[in-house]
Amino acid sequence: MHALEVIGRKRDGGEHSSEEIRSLLAGYLDGSVPDYQMSAWLMAVCLRGMTRAETLALTRAMVESGETLDLSAIPGVKVDKHSTGGVGDKVTLIATPLAAACGVPVPKLSGRALAHTGGTLDKLESVPGVTVDLDPARFVEQVSRVGLAVAAQSPRMVPADRAIYALRDASATVPSVPLIASSVMSKKLAAGADAIVLDVKFGRGAFMADAESARELAEEMVWIGEGAGRRTVALVTAMDSPLGRCVGNAIEVLEAIEVLGGGGDPDLAAVSVEVAAEMCALAGAEADPALALRDGSGLERLWAMLEAQGGCRDRPPVAHPAALAVPAPAAGWVAGIDALRCGMAVIDLGGGRLRKDDAIDHGAGLTIAAPVGSRVRAGDPLVLVHAAGEDEARRAVPRLESAWRIVEHPVEVGPHVRHRVSGTPGAD
Amino acid sequence: MHALEVIGRKRDGGEHSSEEIRSLLAGYLDGSVPDYQMSAWLMAVCLRGMTRAETLALTRAMVESGETLDLSAIPGVKVDKHSTGGVGDKVTLIATPLAAACGVPVPKLSGRALAHTGGTLDKLESVPGVTVDLDPARFVEQVSRVGLAVAAQSPRMVPADRAIYALRDASATVPSVPLIASSVMSKKLAAGADAIVLDVKFGRGAFMADAESARELAEEMVWIGEGAGRRTVALVTAMDSPLGRCVGNAIEVLEAIEVLGGGGDPDLAAVSVEVAAEMCALAGAEADPALALRDGSGLERLWAMLEAQGGCRDRPPVAHPAALAVPAPAAGWVAGIDALRCGMAVIDLGGGRLRKDDAIDHGAGLTIAAPVGSRVRAGDPLVLVHAAGEDEARRAVPRLESAWRIVEHPVEVGPHVRHRVSGTPGAD
Repeated sequence: MHALEVIGRKRDGGEHSSEEIRSLLAGYLDGSVPDYQMSAWLMAVCLRGMTRAETLALTRAMVESGETLDLSAIPGVKVDKHSTGGVGDKVTLIATPLAAACGVPVPKLSGRALAHTGGTLDKLESVPGVTVDLDPARFVEQVSRVGLAVAAQSPRMVPADRAIYALRDASATVPSVPLIASSVMSKKLAAGADAIVLDVKFGRGAFMADAESARELAEEMVWIGEGAGRRTVALVTAMDSPLGRCVGNAIEVLEAIEVLGGGGDPDLAAVSVEVAAEMCALAGAEADPALALRDGSGLERLWAMLEAQGGCRDRPPVAHPAALAVPAPAAGWVAGIDALRCGMAVIDLGGGRLRKDDAIDHGAGLTIAAPVGSRVRAGDPLVLVHAAGEDEARRAVPRLESAWRIVEHPVEVGPHVRHRVSGTPGAD
Repeated sequence: MHALEVIGRKRDGGEHSSEEIRSLLAGYLDGSVPDYQMSAWLMAVCLRGMTRAETLALTRAMVESGETLDLSAIPGVKVDKHSTGGVGDKVTLIATPLAAACGVPVPKLSGRALAHTGGTLDKLESVPGVTVDLDPARFVEQVSRVGLAVAAQSPRMVPADRAIYALRDASATVPSVPLIASSVMSKKLAAGADAIVLDVKFGRGAFMADAESARELAEEMVWIGEGAGRRTVALVTAMDSPLGRCVGNAIEVLEAIEVLGGGGDPDLAAVSVEVAAEMCALAGAEADPALALRDGSGLERLWAMLEAQGGCRDRPPVAHPAALAVPAPAAGWVAGIDALRCGMAVIDLGGGRLRKDDAIDHGAGLTIAAPVGSRVRAGDPLVLVHAAGEDEARRAVPRLESAWRIVEHPVEVGPHVRHRVSGTPGAD
């Protein structure tokens, strides 16, 4: 197999064999296929697409490029959960303890904040003492004992995905359903769970622009998961406006604790319970996550996890106080809150990352005072800005002022979950 | 302008501004745009195409990347001639002295043999003493005095084309009409002639597979030439079988001398006269190249050029003697001779190049004894193999045995020139 032949085949619209894909990837990792050949192939994939068989082969080859987690020592059906990323998306912090409280073992590897989207690892690290670096033995032990662990992926897992992702980012070859799907699913397969619940987001604050392309991605990922022998379900959810009331790190953990305590934003609570219910269904667990929310067992499970990872319930995360409020310029109804601008505003505050190695101010963030659908008078606070000081807070104001769309008539708020994609025929 | 934006625009099917193309190219040459970004862009161009305005802008940017020849000191309309490459294609060696003998100043920069196709520079170097490395002053002086010079392109001309060509070759992004057209035409524009005659070949021995794609390439190149203010005409010609009777280096020069002496293959003579007539028409020269063939003035002009470049008519090129003949396996008529296999057979003999720095045995080559359309008996020689010895000659036999297609009925030989593409409306 010669790399030029493989690239030429995709350029001409042909289909690769599994062997070809494996060989191309191996060549890329050992340096015999240079970056400029790989990026040409990636562009050909962006424009020619891949069949599902090719996408599954690519995903498998990426999994095989590194170590995988062996979770066989944990009894029961292990369920993972993944979001494609959004603004204010703290569903993992709520749904996974609810599922664990229902008896579902949840071994979850998470990512970090990048661009306007937040990352669960950064949120967890806002809790004093908490570590997200668990070696495999400790990770497995914690899931067995506590029912839940959320940790960083080892650098020895899916090295091919990491290498290719960096190249895609630097060669304008990111937007491709097969490449996105294989990147996400290779990490999920390597993480070793038996079943996976995917939250595929679309809209202003997500990587997929519209419900249609998000559904296409969801179907591709479910197909890969099932093709690799994992029960997989995906929810396609709207991410035009931030999810819940808070955006940031410490402040999102505090919001998750509030929801698990029975309070907080009802929409966020409902979505989290729905995700947890999907996790329970895949595991065959019969307990009701809504009950785990009401009886406090979910909150208990979150703290058990945080404590297992070095935290302490006497030392909750601390957000900066609200340094200023952005007032409504006119009276009316909030028709939309631009999630992308809110995410970028948090970066302006130092609470996010433009580059992988940027440091984060875990205390910075936003509290939305006027959510979508609410009525405001001129001068009412739209959003509170949490920052180390008023000067820091001011940096976020220009973006936030332009993020709220206020109209002169009441608006209807659409459903959060738009589609459900399941690998079981007829179960949609 | 950010390279990722430019790549993304082509990926999404958009059109570049001239400024964007210039900036991308400049970035590539100064190293700020790495190979892996350029190859991703090249693949996007292969699959999305370019408008003619974009192709002209790319061609101009490549010309501007290096030095250009100033031919203004040479009086008259200077006419260049270019072939996209074939097997046995010695038309340059016949048509350019014919045009020069008709009073057309011909300043021509040529290329070298690569893969199965021959190169005029290597053919010229088979003439003892001849150099193809002429500095600009000597080149201009020779064209002014002798009417004709054929030389190598300076490494300071179109560096962008050289860099991009090498990358295309290594990233499977060669087959693209706009990229091929801009590569050829950037070299022609930089070489400074006022008018250009293009010979665009298609078939087994050419880079374009069929007449349709060759015509598309011809139209694109004529459009670029005219767009850059040069009168341009293209002939689309068949290259399924080798042109003329000889393939090699010294042996092709000898064949050209034979044709210029009034003998040789009539089809080769006719095509060469047709090309020379196009050159005369563009220059407004009224002399008849057919007459220059009959009266020996074309041959005289070839020797004048070879002598100006260091050769001597007492020392003609020397081909190896025929070491063996490949016999016809059966009686019948020759329906086709695979030009690609003949070209590769010459490489087997050491008379061509697989890599740019391969050395060449100028004496090696083929003489076709049974051309297309001829009748053969079993055992008749199909082709004579010229090589340093019989062992060397044997290397070419397997390819040559499979190159002749012999059928049981007489065949009709199609016309060599299939289309004429001109920039002047209504002149086709």
